[in-house]
Amino acid sequence: MEIVLRPIGVIHSPFTEKGRTPIQASRSQAVGLVDVDPEFADGLKDIEGFSHIYLLYAFHQSNGYNLRVKPFLDDREHGLFATRYPRRPNPLGISIVRLVSRRENALTVEGIDVLDGTPLLDIKPYVPDFDHRADVRVGWYETRSKT
Amino acid sequence: MEIVLRPIGVIHSPFTEKGRTPIQASRSQAVGLVDVDPEFADGLKDIEGFSHIYLLYAFHQSNGYNLRVKPFLDDREHGLFATRYPRRPNPLGISIVRLVSRRENALTVEGIDVLDGTPLLDIKPYVPDFDHRADVRVGWYETRSKT
Repeated sequence: MEIVLRPIGVIHSPFTEKGRTPIQASRSQAVGLVDVDPEFADGLKDIEGFSHIYLLYAFHQSNGYNLRVKPFLDDREHGLFATRYPRRPNPLGISIVRLVSRRENALTVEGIDVLDGTPLLDIKPYVPDFDHRADVRVGWYETRSKT
Repeated sequence: MEIVLRPIGVIHSPFTEKGRTPIQASRSQAVGLVDVDPEFADGLKDIEGFSHIYLLYAFHQSNGYNLRVKPFLDDREHGLFATRYPRRPNPLGISIVRLVSRRENALTVEGIDVLDGTPLLDIKPYVPDFDHRADVRVGWYETRSKT
């Protein structure tokens, strides 16, 4: 079974080198431009009501994967699916960014953490009632995510 | 440009009909089984340290899309990307579920909201430090998401 996706736009960011891209959107204040293809612009109606959106995208410069990785935030090896490491069997990324403004089919966003030119696959509104969980355990990130 | 994905497993749930599937994982207490293909089992190392995980999957029973939709929670029309509606140009879904237990390559999860047989594309740990946003505006959901 194959699932074939086509980008709906492209994400522009200040980051042109993998090694200089922020580790997570929550640690970035960088501004990016989400350039949605004009044919999908109508699907953006009402999005300006949301302060935060999910971007779903392809890690387009990521080739192959290993099932055990040393993530950026740790020096120990973990299972790939217990990390947010970009080299994955399906190179899908998600970031939550702040929606600053919309001009027709272009969204200015803050807190971007992807490479310039990243293919955009989907946009979804961030809704805490759906997306926020309390009483969370974060495994090996416990001692690492604040560093 | 095409991005070709191959499922890494399958999600089993009690839901066999689209009309009877919960609207969001946060509203579901249903238990599901995430059956990761054995070849990827090694990538699950350390995942049991996390209480919550993202499932990324394909809306496999969703065909086509409209750019304006009346979502389940409203009787007004909105732009597709301002909704979580399943019929999308790229039929990608994300759900945050509680990880109850792991047995080799099978994860028992709570709060599942997908159809039985949904193709699994990726698993990522849910880390509030990355994934939680405060001071959020939720547009048209403001009056609808609590109902």
